[in-house]
Amino acid sequence: MTDPTETVNDVIRVVDLAGVLGNATLGGIAARSAKLDLVGFVCLAILSGLGGGMIRDTLLQRGTPVALTDPYYLILAVTGAAIAFVVHIRGRWTHRVLTLIDALAVGCWAAVGAQKALEADLGWLPAVMLGVITAVGGGMVRDVFLLRVPSIFGGNTLYATSAVLASVVMVIFSELGLPAIGSAAALLSGAGLSLLARRYRWILPTEVRIRRPSG
Amino acid sequence: MTDPTETVNDVIRVVDLAGVLGNATLGGIAARSAKLDLVGFVCLAILSGLGGGMIRDTLLQRGTPVALTDPYYLILAVTGAAIAFVVHIRGRWTHRVLTLIDALAVGCWAAVGAQKALEADLGWLPAVMLGVITAVGGGMVRDVFLLRVPSIFGGNTLYATSAVLASVVMVIFSELGLPAIGSAAALLSGAGLSLLARRYRWILPTEVRIRRPSG
Amino acid sequence: MTDPTETVNDVIRVVDLAGVLGNATLGGIAARSAKLDLVGFVCLAILSGLGGGMIRDTLLQRGTPVALTDPYYLILAVTGAAIAFVVHIRGRWTHRVLTLIDALAVGCWAAVGAQKALEADLGWLPAVMLGVITAVGGGMVRDVFLLRVPSIFGGNTLYATSAVLASVVMVIFSELGLPAIGSAAALLSGAGLSLLARRYRWILPTEVRIRRPSG
Repeated sequence: MTDPTETVNDVIRVVDLAGVLGNATLGGIAARSAKLDLVGFVCLAILSGLGGGMIRDTLLQRGTPVALTDPYYLILAVTGAAIAFVVHIRGRWTHRVLTLIDALAVGCWAAVGAQKALEADLGWLPAVMLGVITAVGGGMVRDVFLLRVPSIFGGNTLYATSAVLASVVMVIFSELGLPAIGSAAALLSGAGLSLLARRYRWILPTEVRIRRPSG
Repeated sequence: MTDPTETVNDVIRVVDLAGVLGNATLGGIAARSAKLDLVGFVCLAILSGLGGGMIRDTLLQRGTPVALTDPYYLILAVTGAAIAFVVHIRGRWTHRVLTLIDALAVGCWAAVGAQKALEADLGWLPAVMLGVITAVGGGMVRDVFLLRVPSIFGGNTLYATSAVLASVVMVIFSELGLPAIGSAAALLSGAGLSLLARRYRWILPTEVRIRRPSG
Repeated sequence: MTDPTETVNDVIRVVDLAGVLGNATLGGIAARSAKLDLVGFVCLAILSGLGGGMIRDTLLQRGTPVALTDPYYLILAVTGAAIAFVVHIRGRWTHRVLTLIDALAVGCWAAVGAQKALEADLGWLPAVMLGVITAVGGGMVRDVFLLRVPSIFGGNTLYATSAVLASVVMVIFSELGLPAIGSAAALLSGAGLSLLARRYRWILPTEVRIRRPSG
């Protein structure tokens, strides 16, 4: 008989590691577009794959970031850089797989980040914030290093919004005492919204039109 | 009878929170100028209102940043983002109020940051540095995220200089054993210099003209 | 009779401090090119001279960064800013001296960073990463603040590669129980490769040409 909590944890672990590899590869692809050398590939792969978790753990201050203590993370990030450096990735199916991994990673990382914040006795709002940072922080910093306004700030398809949704779902289930169900629900809802938004080009409005008389 | 130290602490607390709300609103206004969506508003509001304190606490390593543990901070930062998103702020008086709050926040945050550094047994120079980072660090990072060279680096009206003054004042009074008077004096001197410099367009020189024979 | 380990440690200390002063001066020179004011000079000097170590210590989470607790560091960084502000540095020999100090600093900082990571019980890969961050992290952040893609990401002459070499050398000797020899070897190999690469314009390739059939 399988313990369902353990199964969820195993799934989260696999998605987490696949997310690191996938996002590191995406970081390497960004490095190729910017015509960087191998150092640039590795730096952007590490930022993309591990940056969000490093920012989260640095803010939480509960010890050295897991990105540095868990040996799999850095190895997978460097592997992603190497793949993107050696293989010129441009196939349609490869991109579909990377998009799927990325969407799953958004949900997974948001769930892990929010849960970690709750375990550190933070409130629900900081927990949502750290969930979102875990999910999108690495890409945000990668964008800045490439001199782009972070894409999550506007114009993209509900990417950070999916992370907000997954974090909120995680916080609610966690407060109800159901962290394992919460992880699964956060993963699925985050990934689902991310994929649907990309498919149907849902974006957030950039402003609402209420004008105040100027004083 | 009122305890003057407590009064000063109450004032500092009120100015601190008003500064978070005011600077978060300014961050939201910057997000509107850059045509960002709601995620961008919230990110820039958090960076502007809480970024300096988060950098300070992350460097000090005395536990999770107060921006995450004190529930008022994040709520006020998100409120500032919401205000800037819903209301198109452009009235003259609104800007005057925001400028005043911002000036008071520079003095207040510098005082708080310097004092925290001294309490962590750092020397006067790191204390001044952390006071300045608390006061101007958030805006500096916000500028970088919007692809601008931080305005405090040059061309502005003694903004960081006001933070330096307030931090130095705080350190001096603190070393004299008068932290409450120091807080009040730092707040007033920082805000005063900031407002005077803005009024009379005082800026720092960008270079001095001493030439060395080339070797 | 002199203890060789102590001699190595003394050399490392001297090179470390010279590196802070030299890189802070280089940061100030960058501030002058960007026509920044004194605040910009000091900020870029601190980032260039101390940024890498601050990122390393913030990630390691073993207490407040030494950049803030060791009084010499900040004083030397501010001194470098002041030198660059007052003196218009452009002599050929001055640049040669700064280049030499910078090359030595790359080797020295990589050795110190890698060693600190090993002492914090991290594995060899995170140790290499933190060695590299110590050596090149400050310049990387300085570039971003000046709105440049970090030069270490591509087109430069094996700068980060020299840091990788020095970190790897340090890790190998440290694992062999020879940290003092490792420090000396890392310093010399890092500085040597950096100077040779600059002299003969060695750079890394930006891509390899293996194409995959698109799927």
